[in-house]
Amino acid sequence: MITLDLCLPDTRYPIHIGRGLLDDAQLILPHLPQRKVAIVTNATVAPLYLERLQRGLEEAGVSVLPIVLPDGEVYKTWDTLNLIFDALLSSRAERKTTLIALGGGVIGDMTGFAAACYQRGAPFIQVPTTLLAQVDSSVGGKTAINHPKGKNMIGAFYQPRAVIADMTLLDTLPQRELSAGLAEVIKYGLLGDVDFLTWLEDNMAALRARDYDALAYAVRRSCEMKAEIVVQDEKETGVRALLNLGHTFGHAIEAGLGFGTWLHGEAVGAGMVLAAALSHELGWIDEAALQRAVRLIGAAGLPTQAPDLGLEAWLEHMSHDKKVESGKLRFVLLKRLGEAAIVEGVDAAALERVLTGPYIQRAD
Amino acid sequence: MITLDLCLPDTRYPIHIGRGLLDDAQLILPHLPQRKVAIVTNATVAPLYLERLQRGLEEAGVSVLPIVLPDGEVYKTWDTLNLIFDALLSSRAERKTTLIALGGGVIGDMTGFAAACYQRGAPFIQVPTTLLAQVDSSVGGKTAINHPKGKNMIGAFYQPRAVIADMTLLDTLPQRELSAGLAEVIKYGLLGDVDFLTWLEDNMAALRARDYDALAYAVRRSCEMKAEIVVQDEKETGVRALLNLGHTFGHAIEAGLGFGTWLHGEAVGAGMVLAAALSHELGWIDEAALQRAVRLIGAAGLPTQAPDLGLEAWLEHMSHDKKVESGKLRFVLLKRLGEAAIVEGVDAAALERVLTGPYIQRAD
Ligand SMILES: NC(=O)c1ccc[n+]([C@@H]2O[C@H](COP(=O)([O-])OP(=O)(O)OC[C@H]3O[C@@H](n4cnc5c(N)ncnc54)[C@H](O)[C@@H]3O)[C@@H](O)[C@H]2O)c1
Ligand SMILES: NC(=O)c1ccc[n+]([C@@H]2O[C@H](COP(=O)([O-])OP(=O)(O)OC[C@H]3O[C@@H](n4cnc5c(N)ncnc54)[C@H](O)[C@@H]3O)[C@@H](O)[C@H]2O)c1
Ligand SMILES: [Zn+2]
Ligand SMILES: [Zn+2]
Repeated sequence: MITLDLCLPDTRYPIHIGRGLLDDAQLILPHLPQRKVAIVTNATVAPLYLERLQRGLEEAGVSVLPIVLPDGEVYKTWDTLNLIFDALLSSRAERKTTLIALGGGVIGDMTGFAAACYQRGAPFIQVPTTLLAQVDSSVGGKTAINHPKGKNMIGAFYQPRAVIADMTLLDTLPQRELSAGLAEVIKYGLLGDVDFLTWLEDNMAALRARDYDALAYAVRRSCEMKAEIVVQDEKETGVRALLNLGHTFGHAIEAGLGFGTWLHGEAVGAGMVLAAALSHELGWIDEAALQRAVRLIGAAGLPTQAPDLGLEAWLEHMSHDKKVESGKLRFVLLKRLGEAAIVEGVDAAALERVLTGPYIQRAD
Repeated sequence: MITLDLCLPDTRYPIHIGRGLLDDAQLILPHLPQRKVAIVTNATVAPLYLERLQRGLEEAGVSVLPIVLPDGEVYKTWDTLNLIFDALLSSRAERKTTLIALGGGVIGDMTGFAAACYQRGAPFIQVPTTLLAQVDSSVGGKTAINHPKGKNMIGAFYQPRAVIADMTLLDTLPQRELSAGLAEVIKYGLLGDVDFLTWLEDNMAALRARDYDALAYAVRRSCEMKAEIVVQDEKETGVRALLNLGHTFGHAIEAGLGFGTWLHGEAVGAGMVLAAALSHELGWIDEAALQRAVRLIGAAGLPTQAPDLGLEAWLEHMSHDKKVESGKLRFVLLKRLGEAAIVEGVDAAALERVLTGPYIQRAD
């Protein structure tokens, strides 16, 4: 096990990365102000991992309230959040009851937001069970639910007290979900570390075969880079926006197809291809670099073409993005492989060429 | 106008107290990151004051989205909160759009919570229009909505960028609401400043006649005391609990009768009588001090007897209070007039005598 330390102005917390951590209640106990927790999970993850986590805690004398939610991004809503509140209030959970998120990003985002709001703030621990959650959503304190008019529109910045990433939990993850997680991993390489990008090219097969060591290294490097950026900008007023590489396009894909059609990571994969293509259109990266990015994204089992939403729908959906400032579109683009920048006022013709170009699927 | 400055570790903000402040857009402009605001108010306050606030801002070049909610504590729910989110998203409000709460504590609490959650945090300004909101709910950053299983159970600590308390808005406040606000004012005297308590005894008639100078002094002194306590304990882990004098009993009254039957301030009035009576039962304050407290509460037009909920219901409702720690009841009691203390493990017999004693209404 290795442990990263995320130090923020008001708080610090450990990110534990390793194998078999789910059974180690000692990683959780030091963070509990009271020997009472609620484990929030979903109907898919519960039969796989709930009992192990619960037993470990109960043997350590912790009383456990399991809360099992329906599975799916479509349930990342107020109604589902309310199931958490109902369960907590019915069991008279106090404001020192710790909420533990056991699941992917959907469970993590909802549990974190529930913790942020329950009696104005209960303690919270992340046990991410998808690769995407381990490298991205469980670290950094963004929590949210969706609103019919927009994804992640209602939420809070709220930090966990610990993150526990157990590689062995990824064994049961569907292949498509693994690839989706790899999209975020590739993102870190593209935006900030060309050596890591090269490492990913060399180790993609091992990662997709779920080699624990390869996975642990990828998770570690991803968390390090995310932590570095979050420390600089906890509330996303500046540099944190770099983490949105591929996401302005990606969110438009998710919204345009209807949430849940493509996985978030798949949309980000295709979105990063478009961001790289736009960077190339603007003359920043050459064709070889663009092809390297596209190849790596494809090697991860991700789509390298976006669906054809139509220009108007693209612009409409992108302007709904939270990263919009005073009506202006902002993109995260590549200055070179391993270096991203935030760009405003992108040339409309270049954008149009990308959105009608070779990285858009043709209907025929 | 006088201005208090509330300095917290992460933020500071002014509390302006005076007459005619509603028309002075200059008090608001410096706090807007973007010349766009949403004014959240209700169907009672809107016809009285919305146009004045809106016109002042529009004349200063600010675009204004008015959001008019139904009036009442029963609407302090997620469904109503969602009306705010719907309006913001429909008008494509960005995360720098400032939310202005124009109303009493219900509007302030909901608007503050909406601002805390909208895109994970939008700026927020309080324009309290009830005495209770001016002396209490608008200051200190507690925001919340109710849950069917408990009042203020879902919320956030989220500070406004400014508080603007205009005494002339109180002209239209129903007499019963004015008295409810005076309950919180008396609370500050009882818990921390016996000189202020004496001032209140001398000026109760002027306050109830809405003398602007008397009101401004009472608001100022109340905000000063609240600010002093909040600065010491922003997240309510310790001394801030003193502000709950009368509230453990008060919340039980509100819950026992059904929310909305008694006003919050009325319940707090009777709750403070019970807290004083319990302090007397425990031998801390003498009969004369108890009578002084009861008389002042009565002079403010507040009930000095609580409804007869029955012992079991009292205990049940009090144990649901957020101030419960590990199942133990905690009370804020009076060591003497002008000094409160947090007490755990109160003698059950003394508590029972109070809950069946002379400050409980008899059915006959
Ligand atoms: N907070 C952030 O900073 C942040 C960052 C990125 C994404 N997100 C959010 O994360 C969500 C996506 O997260 P996700 O990709 O983890 O999706 P997810 O939580 O829906 O998990 C994907 C699927 O895998 C299942 N699953 C989870 N763990 C499993 C396991 N170990 N074995 C078998 N099945 C398992 C889940 O039940 C689900 O069906 C989105 O809602 C997105 O908005 C948040
Ligand atoms: N956040 C905190 O720290 C805090 C502290 C105390 C109370 N509260 C909350 O505040 C709420 C109670 O606040 P409240 O007493 O202001 O109640 P309220 O907001 O319901 O206002 C009382 C009534 O007066 C009306 N009104 C408001 N201003 C008026 C005016 N100028 N003229 C005429 N009518 C006017 C309102 O429309 C309402 O009908 C409760 O929900 C309570 O939980 C919060
Ligand atoms: Zn993402
Ligand atoms: Zn109160």
